[in-house]
Amino acid sequence: MITTANIKNGVNVDQLVETIGAVQGNPELAKFEFRTKNNWIEGGHCVSSMKSFYGVGQEDTSRQETFTMECDHPNVLLGEDKAATPVEVVLHALGSCLTGAMVYHAAANGIDIEGAESSLKGGCDLHGFLGLDPEVRKGFDGITVRLKVKSDASEEQLLNLAKFSPVFDIISNPTPISIEIVK
Amino acid sequence: MITTANIKNGVNVDQLVETIGAVQGNPELAKFEFRTKNNWIEGGHCVSSMKSFYGVGQEDTSRQETFTMECDHPNVLLGEDKAATPVEVVLHALGSCLTGAMVYHAAANGIDIEGAESSLKGGCDLHGFLGLDPEVRKGFDGITVRLKVKSDASEEQLLNLAKFSPVFDIISNPTPISIEIVK
Repeated sequence: MITTANIKNGVNVDQLVETIGAVQGNPELAKFEFRTKNNWIEGGHCVSSMKSFYGVGQEDTSRQETFTMECDHPNVLLGEDKAATPVEVVLHALGSCLTGAMVYHAAANGIDIEGAESSLKGGCDLHGFLGLDPEVRKGFDGITVRLKVKSDASEEQLLNLAKFSPVFDIISNPTPISIEIVK
Repeated sequence: MITTANIKNGVNVDQLVETIGAVQGNPELAKFEFRTKNNWIEGGHCVSSMKSFYGVGQEDTSRQETFTMECDHPNVLLGEDKAATPVEVVLHALGSCLTGAMVYHAAANGIDIEGAESSLKGGCDLHGFLGLDPEVRKGFDGITVRLKVKSDASEEQLLNLAKFSPVFDIISNPTPISIEIVK
């Protein structure tokens, strides 16, 4: 007998249901730790690499490739513009995560997503970063996302699905960051 | 007469001082807007591009290149592992931004940074993302950063400089995100 995997929106729904069942059977499987190493090059230019992570009760052994990505700053921010700025990278992570969350949860709920694209904007005022005004935020004062989706589901349904995004939670709610400086 | 630019840690300190002076003279120059476009490919696989931004009182015309970067998910999270996950990308942005902020502010304060590398970790529990427990966060429950710096400055000084990071602010404090779904 030939069986066909139940794929919706590019997501293997059978595997998704299995994952939910496995986590319900053994809550420890749900614990993940993601890691990134970052190396300074010069000025505001850095390169990161990521490969290992922990999840499903063990150190991952499936990932073969080490991913690398850079950050730099444009000329007006004293960089050489060799890569996107860290704040643009945050928008990339957010856009990808909102979309991915919407697509996965749509698949789990039997909702077809035929297409999705988004544009994200974040504003900031350098008085914060430059230390010229302690009342001004160093980061974005806010982010706006316009997510265009081709689907029969309603805007409200799609928004509720997108809000399962981990990066949406990380940014919109306070996330504690502990920094240890080592000489 | 030949003059040499005053460079420290790869940062043009003369230009940095000029920038601070310009912002103090005309606060509108400090307003920036960064943008990213994101396109869904399938499942949890997306690609972003970034080029245009607004700053220093005008639309930027200096950036020649459009930067692109992808996100995907590993096999255990039902992806094809073609790129880092959005949450790993957040760690990349944070590590780069903490380092860049430290390096820029060190340069402005006459502090030499001879080297810097960091390792970042973020933990999460899939009960949140999967919607199995509303009490569990969808994103990281916390991030730890170990930043190794070669410098004569004290750990405390370096930590205070790193905390000028815009991405540190974006993540550690709530940042409002407005999402518009368009069909």
